[in-house]
Amino acid sequence: MKIAILIYDGITALDAVGPYDLLNRVPGTDIRFVAKEKRSVRTGNGALGLVADYALSDVDTADVLLVPGGSKGLAEAIHDPAYQDWIRDIDKTTQWTTSVCSGALFLGAAGLLEGRRATTHWRAAHGLAKYGATYVGERYVHDGKFVTAAGVSAGIDMALYLVEQIEGREIAQAVQLSAEYVPQPPFPPVSAAAASGHLKEMVTKLAV
Amino acid sequence: MKIAILIYDGITALDAVGPYDLLNRVPGTDIRFVAKEKRSVRTGNGALGLVADYALSDVDTADVLLVPGGSKGLAEAIHDPAYQDWIRDIDKTTQWTTSVCSGALFLGAAGLLEGRRATTHWRAAHGLAKYGATYVGERYVHDGKFVTAAGVSAGIDMALYLVEQIEGREIAQAVQLSAEYVPQPPFPPVSAAAASGHLKEMVTKLAV
Repeated sequence: MKIAILIYDGITALDAVGPYDLLNRVPGTDIRFVAKEKRSVRTGNGALGLVADYALSDVDTADVLLVPGGSKGLAEAIHDPAYQDWIRDIDKTTQWTTSVCSGALFLGAAGLLEGRRATTHWRAAHGLAKYGATYVGERYVHDGKFVTAAGVSAGIDMALYLVEQIEGREIAQAVQLSAEYVPQPPFPPVSAAAASGHLKEMVTKLAV
Repeated sequence: MKIAILIYDGITALDAVGPYDLLNRVPGTDIRFVAKEKRSVRTGNGALGLVADYALSDVDTADVLLVPGGSKGLAEAIHDPAYQDWIRDIDKTTQWTTSVCSGALFLGAAGLLEGRRATTHWRAAHGLAKYGATYVGERYVHDGKFVTAAGVSAGIDMALYLVEQIEGREIAQAVQLSAEYVPQPPFPPVSAAAASGHLKEMVTKLAV
């Protein structure tokens, strides 16, 4: 199973690395990190670099395409014809085309979500409509061969779903146990739908 | 808040990047990825490189030290005096010394867990006793200034706990909402304690 993960400057590291770390446990996967050029990109506010071993021009097929979201530079990147053309070309070859967080906007800008149900980070939800997609406030949304995940950490749940779809539940459960994914945050999670306006406002003041 | 994250070849990417991505959202954090030399290291089975902007010799203090776990090469690395000396030296300067997954074995080998309660990946649990630590099968374990997390994904929960300890619950909740950490795996999680022997055996056959 050949998996291509698109990375770019400003990417949210966990969007890419959550799914990578789980999918990478499945025997027989070949995961390639792909950027505009073959070099490292900087994540978030720049504290970590991820290495792209492949340039866009090096990869022309994939069984699974995964497009992570990002913050800085995202609005510009999603309208870059180089990304749009590559995403469209790879999508023609995939069995699954997927995104995490605001990565859904890349798929939308490439014209792939027209008429589809999809999800994204709650703060990017308004952005899907302009690409003809209907935002669904679920953890991940499966429509045809497209699976889009909500914000950041939702990519982990989506990756398990993908492994289940591709390899069956038993392998997916083994991956889950291998990554010891038995979430126990120190306080109960609050969904965007249930969050107070005050808490949402605090999110806008965080560093990334 | 100065945070040093140790990385090395064979590291489990999510062990480092889960906590990084959350801690990085806290205003005023300065996160430094540190490796033996200032270069990129390869994660897991090698499909992804993480860039270390700092060599061990570049960093001599930190408020928070985080040591992620790994697979290949771990047994050798934890006994490398270069890592042991650096970990001991940095620990003398920290407010918090933390690990994720088999990263606890680094802390143990450096002599820091003697007489302490700690946790690690369930598959590495037997390794703690030789360093005088008592394994506790919890999501994360706080003993003194040491916080150790269970396997891989547990670093995310531990990071939220750390943010709560350092910045208070409200900031931690904003970080959680920012990363949309409302876990919903497609099937119920199974803890190592509850997993069947068959499922545990399957984990040993995964690719990483």
